[in-house]
Amino acid sequence: MQIEAIYHRPKDNYAYACTKDDLHIRIRTKKKDVTKVTLLFGDPYRWEDGKWVYDSIPMTLTGTDSLFDYWLVEITPPFRRLRYGFVLYDGSSETFFGEKGFFQKPSTDVADYFCFPFLNTADVFLAPQWVKNTVWYQIFPERFANGNSSNDPNGALPWGSNEPSPDNFFGGDLEGVLENISYLKDLGINGIYFTPIFKAFSNHKYDTIDYLELDPAFGDKETFKRLIKACHDQDIKVMLDAVFNHSGFYFPPFQDVLQHGEKSKYKDWFHIHDFPIKTEPVPNYDTFAFTPFMPKLNTENNEVKDYLLNVARYWIEEFDIDGWRLDVANEIDHQFWREFRQEVKAIKPDLYILGEIWHDSMPWLRGDQFDAVMNYPFTTNLLNLFAKQSISSKQFVENMTNVLHMYPKNIHDVAFNLVGSHDTPRVLNECNQDENRAKQIFTFLLTFIGTPCIYYGDEIGMSGGQDPGCRKCMEWDGEKQNRDLFTHIQTLIRLRKKEPLLANEGTLSFLPPELHRDSIAFTKSDGKQTVLVLMNCSEQDINYTLPFDLKGKTIKNLYTSKEFAADVEEIDVKLKPFDFTILKF
Amino acid sequence: MQIEAIYHRPKDNYAYACTKDDLHIRIRTKKKDVTKVTLLFGDPYRWEDGKWVYDSIPMTLTGTDSLFDYWLVEITPPFRRLRYGFVLYDGSSETFFGEKGFFQKPSTDVADYFCFPFLNTADVFLAPQWVKNTVWYQIFPERFANGNSSNDPNGALPWGSNEPSPDNFFGGDLEGVLENISYLKDLGINGIYFTPIFKAFSNHKYDTIDYLELDPAFGDKETFKRLIKACHDQDIKVMLDAVFNHSGFYFPPFQDVLQHGEKSKYKDWFHIHDFPIKTEPVPNYDTFAFTPFMPKLNTENNEVKDYLLNVARYWIEEFDIDGWRLDVANEIDHQFWREFRQEVKAIKPDLYILGEIWHDSMPWLRGDQFDAVMNYPFTTNLLNLFAKQSISSKQFVENMTNVLHMYPKNIHDVAFNLVGSHDTPRVLNECNQDENRAKQIFTFLLTFIGTPCIYYGDEIGMSGGQDPGCRKCMEWDGEKQNRDLFTHIQTLIRLRKKEPLLANEGTLSFLPPELHRDSIAFTKSDGKQTVLVLMNCSEQDINYTLPFDLKGKTIKNLYTSKEFAADVEEIDVKLKPFDFTILKF
Repeated sequence: MQIEAIYHRPKDNYAYACTKDDLHIRIRTKKKDVTKVTLLFGDPYRWEDGKWVYDSIPMTLTGTDSLFDYWLVEITPPFRRLRYGFVLYDGSSETFFGEKGFFQKPSTDVADYFCFPFLNTADVFLAPQWVKNTVWYQIFPERFANGNSSNDPNGALPWGSNEPSPDNFFGGDLEGVLENISYLKDLGINGIYFTPIFKAFSNHKYDTIDYLELDPAFGDKETFKRLIKACHDQDIKVMLDAVFNHSGFYFPPFQDVLQHGEKSKYKDWFHIHDFPIKTEPVPNYDTFAFTPFMPKLNTENNEVKDYLLNVARYWIEEFDIDGWRLDVANEIDHQFWREFRQEVKAIKPDLYILGEIWHDSMPWLRGDQFDAVMNYPFTTNLLNLFAKQSISSKQFVENMTNVLHMYPKNIHDVAFNLVGSHDTPRVLNECNQDENRAKQIFTFLLTFIGTPCIYYGDEIGMSGGQDPGCRKCMEWDGEKQNRDLFTHIQTLIRLRKKEPLLANEGTLSFLPPELHRDSIAFTKSDGKQTVLVLMNCSEQDINYTLPFDLKGKTIKNLYTSKEFAADVEEIDVKLKPFDFTILKF
Repeated sequence: MQIEAIYHRPKDNYAYACTKDDLHIRIRTKKKDVTKVTLLFGDPYRWEDGKWVYDSIPMTLTGTDSLFDYWLVEITPPFRRLRYGFVLYDGSSETFFGEKGFFQKPSTDVADYFCFPFLNTADVFLAPQWVKNTVWYQIFPERFANGNSSNDPNGALPWGSNEPSPDNFFGGDLEGVLENISYLKDLGINGIYFTPIFKAFSNHKYDTIDYLELDPAFGDKETFKRLIKACHDQDIKVMLDAVFNHSGFYFPPFQDVLQHGEKSKYKDWFHIHDFPIKTEPVPNYDTFAFTPFMPKLNTENNEVKDYLLNVARYWIEEFDIDGWRLDVANEIDHQFWREFRQEVKAIKPDLYILGEIWHDSMPWLRGDQFDAVMNYPFTTNLLNLFAKQSISSKQFVENMTNVLHMYPKNIHDVAFNLVGSHDTPRVLNECNQDENRAKQIFTFLLTFIGTPCIYYGDEIGMSGGQDPGCRKCMEWDGEKQNRDLFTHIQTLIRLRKKEPLLANEGTLSFLPPELHRDSIAFTKSDGKQTVLVLMNCSEQDINYTLPFDLKGKTIKNLYTSKEFAADVEEIDVKLKPFDFTILKF
């Protein structure tokens, strides 16, 4: 047994509360090294005849990545306290593993065991229930629809007349969104994530001038109230973008510092290294990346904290928004986010807090800060397989398994899964304009766990490269829309709503990629019924033999609604190149 | 290379801020598997000609435990942001390791690297500076000294007339401590940790009745103020015990629930499963362990939280205490402790927050909760080697190395190191009454890093088994005190104060236990001067050849104050069984 490969440490993704009564305990072992893992566990204070009393329960293999096997067990400690250890068996010998290391036999000293001291409800990661049933639609407001030409910015170009550039404008606004809610409803989405809408200088509005005002080119607060009401009337949630890491250059406090230097009462609102302020060759103040126009806010300063937390409360209290997406969330201090969570959840307990973090995000997902992060590791993996074909099906499953085991299981229900955004090339571009591959990507996105998001226009096959190319004006001419792709996505959204197993119910399992190296297959099952999503990732026809005994069962193709009775033992599914199927049995 | 054994995950003990400008990056590899580790690192936003730009720096091997080697590098990112990966070399081949796994060559995609997104000062673990220069003395007030017989509890026994029992009393009080401050000053300690002093039922006072009153048998608030003033005048810090996990049975709110059941306005102050309340056979309310007399407080209830946080503030604001030791800290929710920290640090930023946690405590030591925990893994390791001789020197060094790498390095400066307490048998009992072994234990305790604590009476060789045996009345008859042990400890405390390298300055290194299997040797060095602590752990004389080139240097024995010039290349130190030496060169 490769004991050095075995990993467990309490809390985080290895021992966590999945409900207020239940714990998940996980352990990692070297791939194909250990054949059985048993959890030894007991109440820390349960002694009989001078001996600590423990029970045992087998653990289940929940996945394998390129290097490791992962094991899980769910347990309900009667007194919400647990000491535990592991017995690992490799086919020939057993080893005990606890906090103090490896022993030949289970230790009789309770101090040698791991400890989950108490399952306190306040520490349980609990994301809003509605999120796991939400399909998001991301709107970049300057480019979605122009509903009111009277508020167009100076020099706004006719809609869609030009390629997007870093500094041109087309007049998109909130009224445009309002006018198209029926379109969104028809598509089936039930959450809108708006990139910033507050008063700012650029077309993307990530350089805020006033966090308490809407950008005048987007509309007024009355319009926004109508928009929120219309969304809520249609059961559509609304999430705004909080750009709290940095302000814009024209944010009045920063302008005040530029003007008054060291004498400015706002000088501690930023991280200024020395005076006078310079922007060249490198700014002498902290910025987002090296962008002089985005001075980093000092979120440790109490005035700044009060100001931003007031902003966070204002748009909830006055406009009843349902979520905050936090821009560059990883560069702001954890302490700020802890206070942010306390403040916003006190007003609206089921508000969704979504952080923009592209890398491993465990330190933000411990229940005290965010409900979710933008799941870019998911994005990368999907694009690498389906769009770029730079990884094999096997690698895809291994990578996805790795991501799934990086965090507690319940975090994945509300993971914000995206396949493109205003910061990436459009899906269709990544797919080299191959519609079938794009369809597979959306099939995976909309049948997997998590809360999926569609970037505006992707559903009608809009193209565009890296920013600014991906920020074209929405195509409203039906003739120029890819209605076939639209219908595909619409169908998947409808299925996802109708069939809870396609959303976040049941237990997810990947079928071993060894079964067919050119395919991806996963199931979700509640023990009674199972859905299977199967995709051919190759340029050849494939014949996939289902590894289930289905004889006598009725199998329904959820995508086509066709049913057939399984009258043979071995059922083969034939799939054309880049085709897919969704079966229920 | 055993890549499955390699571990790194940002934050916690693997990537952390050690100051507001500097990061420590650590990695774990299989023992003796990797010969060189290089860190590749750069600013996340530093690109030139479309390529991400990184630098490299070698890492240092900082220790080896039974299974792993640990490597460290300190780095100062100019813009407080870092992406980084590792190049590992095993003598024949190189591997790159980043967030996305192992690669044959360093990746050129920044997303494959680990991320430390921003070094925010608010998140830096910063314990009070004074703690690392403090030597604590733990007082169990009922048993230290009786300075005022007028407040003795009913039925108090004459001082030291009986063995301690779970429910007898001897009349120890605060006046008794006041009268003996000169004794403590003579010993040399500069911090007192009091087990609970608030009004309670038992002799140990862990079953609080009133958190805002002193126990009348210990004295009044005026006496406590005099005591604090006397301590502060003598540069002695005072830490109190906060028993917030549970109240006592006679805590009025619990009595109110007992009396009024479901109608009590305090019913949500506890975790009551159903009414009426029962204590038999198992309490139908949550308790500490299974003790009906210690009902667990509901620290998630806002009234309870307000009440306890007011308590926490009160003793700081009114009495200027310097530290809170938190009883059963691991069973209270993290959220409570985060708020606790905010509240107490707002009043007194350099207050020491010490949690009672016996197991791996990383989740409480992330800078948002505690400054330190009671370092019982240290205790166990020390007793196993010096007292019980159940482990070898090699195991001792491996275990200590393991503990040292479980947490960020700066956490160890203020780790509360103890060798006995009111919850364990006395050191001398653990040593089977062997004074030499006890001396070694104190030698290690008082020359190692961390903040050492001496349990009252251990310094004069008091004996006693597990609680209540370890809670005897302090022996004030000089004839019955072990003055030799007292002088030993006094000498070590003086040395520790005089010689910063004996406290928390310099870099700690264990000498490889292979050099002499019967000894323990460690050094602390600031690059100019080195102190060496060497102990013979065996029943035989040993001859330890110092693995340093000291020719021409002056070597001082700090314990005896003798100096000698090293005039030969190889210097041997002879030590009798269980003897020790402390050299400086």
